[in-house]
Amino acid sequence: MTDYSPTPADRFAFGLWTVGWRGVDVFGGAVRPPLDPVEAVTRLSELGAWAVSFHDNDLIPFDADESTRDGLISRFRKGLDDTGVVVSMMTTDLFGHPIFRDGGFTNNDRAVRRFALAKVLRNLDLAAELGAPIYVLWGGREGAESGGAKNVAAALDRYREGMNILTGYVRERGYDIKFAIEPKPNEPRGDILLPTIGHALAFIDSLDDSELVGLNPEVGHEEMAGLNFAQGIAQALWHGKLFHIDLNGQHGPRFDQDLRFGAGNLRGAFWTVDVLEGNGYAGPKHFDYKPPRTEDIDGVWGTAAACMRNYKILQAKVRAFRADPEVAEALAAARVPELSEPTLAAGESLADLRAEPVDVAALASRGMAFEHLDQLAMEHLLGVRG
Amino acid sequence: MTDYSPTPADRFAFGLWTVGWRGVDVFGGAVRPPLDPVEAVTRLSELGAWAVSFHDNDLIPFDADESTRDGLISRFRKGLDDTGVVVSMMTTDLFGHPIFRDGGFTNNDRAVRRFALAKVLRNLDLAAELGAPIYVLWGGREGAESGGAKNVAAALDRYREGMNILTGYVRERGYDIKFAIEPKPNEPRGDILLPTIGHALAFIDSLDDSELVGLNPEVGHEEMAGLNFAQGIAQALWHGKLFHIDLNGQHGPRFDQDLRFGAGNLRGAFWTVDVLEGNGYAGPKHFDYKPPRTEDIDGVWGTAAACMRNYKILQAKVRAFRADPEVAEALAAARVPELSEPTLAAGESLADLRAEPVDVAALASRGMAFEHLDQLAMEHLLGVRG
Amino acid sequence: MTDYSPTPADRFAFGLWTVGWRGVDVFGGAVRPPLDPVEAVTRLSELGAWAVSFHDNDLIPFDADESTRDGLISRFRKGLDDTGVVVSMMTTDLFGHPIFRDGGFTNNDRAVRRFALAKVLRNLDLAAELGAPIYVLWGGREGAESGGAKNVAAALDRYREGMNILTGYVRERGYDIKFAIEPKPNEPRGDILLPTIGHALAFIDSLDDSELVGLNPEVGHEEMAGLNFAQGIAQALWHGKLFHIDLNGQHGPRFDQDLRFGAGNLRGAFWTVDVLEGNGYAGPKHFDYKPPRTEDIDGVWGTAAACMRNYKILQAKVRAFRADPEVAEALAAARVPELSEPTLAAGESLADLRAEPVDVAALASRGMAFEHLDQLAMEHLLGVRG
Amino acid sequence: MTDYSPTPADRFAFGLWTVGWRGVDVFGGAVRPPLDPVEAVTRLSELGAWAVSFHDNDLIPFDADESTRDGLISRFRKGLDDTGVVVSMMTTDLFGHPIFRDGGFTNNDRAVRRFALAKVLRNLDLAAELGAPIYVLWGGREGAESGGAKNVAAALDRYREGMNILTGYVRERGYDIKFAIEPKPNEPRGDILLPTIGHALAFIDSLDDSELVGLNPEVGHEEMAGLNFAQGIAQALWHGKLFHIDLNGQHGPRFDQDLRFGAGNLRGAFWTVDVLEGNGYAGPKHFDYKPPRTEDIDGVWGTAAACMRNYKILQAKVRAFRADPEVAEALAAARVPELSEPTLAAGESLADLRAEPVDVAALASRGMAFEHLDQLAMEHLLGVRG
Repeated sequence: MTDYSPTPADRFAFGLWTVGWRGVDVFGGAVRPPLDPVEAVTRLSELGAWAVSFHDNDLIPFDADESTRDGLISRFRKGLDDTGVVVSMMTTDLFGHPIFRDGGFTNNDRAVRRFALAKVLRNLDLAAELGAPIYVLWGGREGAESGGAKNVAAALDRYREGMNILTGYVRERGYDIKFAIEPKPNEPRGDILLPTIGHALAFIDSLDDSELVGLNPEVGHEEMAGLNFAQGIAQALWHGKLFHIDLNGQHGPRFDQDLRFGAGNLRGAFWTVDVLEGNGYAGPKHFDYKPPRTEDIDGVWGTAAACMRNYKILQAKVRAFRADPEVAEALAAARVPELSEPTLAAGESLADLRAEPVDVAALASRGMAFEHLDQLAMEHLLGVRG
Repeated sequence: MTDYSPTPADRFAFGLWTVGWRGVDVFGGAVRPPLDPVEAVTRLSELGAWAVSFHDNDLIPFDADESTRDGLISRFRKGLDDTGVVVSMMTTDLFGHPIFRDGGFTNNDRAVRRFALAKVLRNLDLAAELGAPIYVLWGGREGAESGGAKNVAAALDRYREGMNILTGYVRERGYDIKFAIEPKPNEPRGDILLPTIGHALAFIDSLDDSELVGLNPEVGHEEMAGLNFAQGIAQALWHGKLFHIDLNGQHGPRFDQDLRFGAGNLRGAFWTVDVLEGNGYAGPKHFDYKPPRTEDIDGVWGTAAACMRNYKILQAKVRAFRADPEVAEALAAARVPELSEPTLAAGESLADLRAEPVDVAALASRGMAFEHLDQLAMEHLLGVRG
Repeated sequence: MTDYSPTPADRFAFGLWTVGWRGVDVFGGAVRPPLDPVEAVTRLSELGAWAVSFHDNDLIPFDADESTRDGLISRFRKGLDDTGVVVSMMTTDLFGHPIFRDGGFTNNDRAVRRFALAKVLRNLDLAAELGAPIYVLWGGREGAESGGAKNVAAALDRYREGMNILTGYVRERGYDIKFAIEPKPNEPRGDILLPTIGHALAFIDSLDDSELVGLNPEVGHEEMAGLNFAQGIAQALWHGKLFHIDLNGQHGPRFDQDLRFGAGNLRGAFWTVDVLEGNGYAGPKHFDYKPPRTEDIDGVWGTAAACMRNYKILQAKVRAFRADPEVAEALAAARVPELSEPTLAAGESLADLRAEPVDVAALASRGMAFEHLDQLAMEHLLGVRG
Repeated sequence: MTDYSPTPADRFAFGLWTVGWRGVDVFGGAVRPPLDPVEAVTRLSELGAWAVSFHDNDLIPFDADESTRDGLISRFRKGLDDTGVVVSMMTTDLFGHPIFRDGGFTNNDRAVRRFALAKVLRNLDLAAELGAPIYVLWGGREGAESGGAKNVAAALDRYREGMNILTGYVRERGYDIKFAIEPKPNEPRGDILLPTIGHALAFIDSLDDSELVGLNPEVGHEEMAGLNFAQGIAQALWHGKLFHIDLNGQHGPRFDQDLRFGAGNLRGAFWTVDVLEGNGYAGPKHFDYKPPRTEDIDGVWGTAAACMRNYKILQAKVRAFRADPEVAEALAAARVPELSEPTLAAGESLADLRAEPVDVAALASRGMAFEHLDQLAMEHLLGVRG
């Protein structure tokens, strides 16, 4: 039987807040004790992970003084050094503390916006120090519950101002850091400012230094809007903007479930891996999930291992699917390769095109043979082929 | 009591396919007789509409020969001349005929793509002839039911190729026509290629002549993805891309309901009108709805009138809301105007910002007073103020 | 202008946990200080509320000893006596403490089920002592994230066992208490056992003493499943089972928003009030909402007042709608009253029915005139009639 | 490799309208020629199906005269006899013709209700003649788009009246036929009267002869409401009401997709088969799907074969999962069997229960080990175990 054990070469990464989630939700308190970040790094390393990511306040309490901060950072660095785990991404907590009740960069309160900006700048220095190449911005509290509360144009102006300041700062300091915006449609805010991959892509195009800014799409966030995640990241890749990814599981439009990767929409996970493996994505395979509140710490480590294992299982299946000669035939029958041919021939004029006779009835009667192709994919997924 | 009767100055427009919808759905056949386009123009004019829009095949059957086509067009022009109704938009039917089962511009079948392109080109000539300033592209069949059937990158390449051809053609002919892409997440395809306002905005940025291309967002299409329509069009306006709009009603994620404007999410309709009225939108107020299959022809005209009337009622309410001094106070209390102030002062350095002392506890305890503001909006909507 | 000030005669009630919600969610901590239950009672009374409801642990901490418990209860009773506020409903917290991570009555762990049962029994004594006529059961943690974790048949057996024990206990003690089950489709569990009004109604029919058990439907819970709340409660009333109600606001399938009543689906709120006012519902008008996390304590009291005010505004509109002669005509034109006539005449045989000639074409061409009726309702709601 | 070829012993059945769907939707016309019902029976038989089902108008045009009707029926019977295919279910088309624009049994128009009833009665005679043991009622047009249009209590009265007439008729004639109600939340109506399994179960309890009436739940219909289908049918089985089933695929809340079984929510399909196989369901495994409009007739037969094949693949996996000793251990660790033990011991009093000391801290710290169990299921599904 195939070995699906992960190794650092797989570039699997976990947020500290994932295995460290204590289970607090709207309806109940913590069910698990706090998890020491160094313990998290060590255990994840043993399980085969390559990297970790974190929000500043996953490591350093919001109110920590300087010496506490320094102590926590150096202890954490030692944990990294001891294990060889790297920091693949850093991000800022601009949502947990009550000061951010209306968000950070787009908070109506200018003093809070300023505080948020300073908080990010400080953590960019830490990201540079720890060698994190990607800095994620999830604007979970940037939004509104009601239409009058937020001037969307002003909010986008402020978000752009903030992003321009950050890219300018990184250029000035010479940090080798790129930014990745993480869209989400809603929760915890009623409606969030950049709700989907598309909205974030369009926003990025408006920035002063847009080449430094890309996306960190999350499976569940797009699926909360009923969108097809694999199609979404394929579009992000087409725009050259898939800088990072958050892999997890979700059951369509409802609360943010953050299930382990593979759980939820399994067929979607297959196509997600297919897009990642087939389009040269070289970033971290980063899991942003929450071990369900039913689990104790053994369940936490079990789900972390399962995220990686499920990715590797799907990776093997995707490769077998793409290598299967019957699949190649089915793709041809579905005329999938034909979509890569330009519609107009080189040098052809529109007049030529318009003059061309067309056998409409013949074209209209041709089936696309998509279902046969999809059934082959299904059977690879189910392990009943090859 | 206020007069909500529409006049051409209101710039209300209707698709011929709206009042002309005969009620065919997946589960049943036509319930209403065919509606003569000239009759539609005449009746809409009597109701106060300013303009109509149409797909080529709303006017001209797919298989019509040249002389039939010419006859239908000249009869239609006469109808326009007789009433003063203008054509505010034209579009192509690339979804009804079986030849388009896999779409038009992104059909896997190159011959179909070529046919689709020729069909649009021909209708651009007609649009120019009829003086339609906007040409809409709704890619309802551009999509897929399964992950293998569509190479998204190739599909976007082809879509871009198609759009570049169209903008080139319009430039070459000197037509005064702009294009508006209409996003939709799904239905009739499992997943549609440009599912939201955001995805379409990002795609437009990739085009050769992107200034000629904007958006035609539809209320129900965004709400089918659970997205906030008013926020969406505010973002489109911020990007300078709200070229046209499709107003109707929907009850969240489910089939495309195309209810009359106001039905469905009424609070959303209030904020939609608020965004349109408050941000200089000067395009048509175009209704793309379907008179429910329960209605006879009287119900058709009743719903058309109600679309316009509901807009005017909401317009009056939005104006009263924005003029209300207590609302101004509530906006100030919610610090909404403060979001328009840059976060950084002119000339201020990031070092200054970072050195600034912040009273976190004080900021964290300040409420945003959003609910009071929203309740004022609610009471204007309900007509219990002013 | 009409006076919409509430009085105890309106029978408005609030859960202590509503105004007392401190804003803890999955992504952030408390934003408001604890609210003293007696202060809540006093302020709600001043605003015009008639009653309060509570979970045991809204008043008494989970770990309180006997004397603390007694002290809290007697202080609370004094608060009630001082204001005249009554307890209209009590319920048990079987979801907050980690012991209930897999629910109460349907927890896989028998020891937890026993603990849950004892917790409810004890609180039934308190409910009786405080004169609460309704005891609500919201099984928010009764569910599962995955298919193997829960044997649904066994879970329903245990739920029934629990309910039978409770009804038996109440009979035995002679308490004048009825039970109301509150359905919810998901959140915090992936899928909750009794997800809708319908599932709960069917379950109740299976109980030993089903006349003691009815429903407590919540607006947002049904709308999270995309269901029509007004239709749902009309169905519950038809079954004689609308024992209690939770009024709030929601924007369709997404996380549980618990907005103030009126916010979210306003047209739905109109029809909800129409059903309550027109079908003899005599129970409390109970608000189960959460003042958004953006608000401080002033916003809390403002939203509480707005819940009641919005109900009264809608009540006035519903009454005007039902009293409007044009509405009566429109109802007749839509043949709404005709639906109350039996389909078969008294004494008519099926043979007679089948022999009857039918003018299919005539019947098929008759429109239902539903849109005109709905537009009249819309205009009453918007305050542009009468 | 395992043989997944279906045989009549598998009891697979198809609606004639499934393979016969010509692809008409709201946005386009037919893409496939009409399919002769006898051809459908023959081809389905060759593929291994056991039975077919149909609406009256799948076989007999709405306007057919007596002799046409008789000819079609006898030709169809011959097709059945020639192949050995049986009719496992019959149903009435009360939704396609414009006369049913407001439904059948709950149409506001009494004359239409009477016509609908006569239509069903006539087809019950045919069902008896053809030996169909189940008669399905899908009330797709029984509903409303707006709150005033339908008096829900009256509609339920009429629906009940209709069902009581039908059960009375079947008793009187001595037909061996049971009825199965098929719930659906919406589409084609804005909201349908019996939207979920639960609502239909509760309605059935209100009937005069409820033992003759059960459910025909459809995968996609429940998933359109975001509900867990496997949990839903487990609940229907618990009530003794799973009389029939409609298997297909869907991607959550959106239009009714009717994908082939397995497509859409594959993990849900696994648990669906697990419930069917593990709880003694002996009815037909009936597919109600639509071969996508992209397909020609080869795609139609391919998808029909795939529905059955996917069921058999999942059946084999479910059996292996339930037979796996490690799964048994994981179930025990998750305390799943413990849920079948009564919460109260035989003879135990509530006083005993309440007096029992509980180690809350110990119980609260125990994880449920659900994720390990679910990962085992996942690996069986993916074919990477055993």
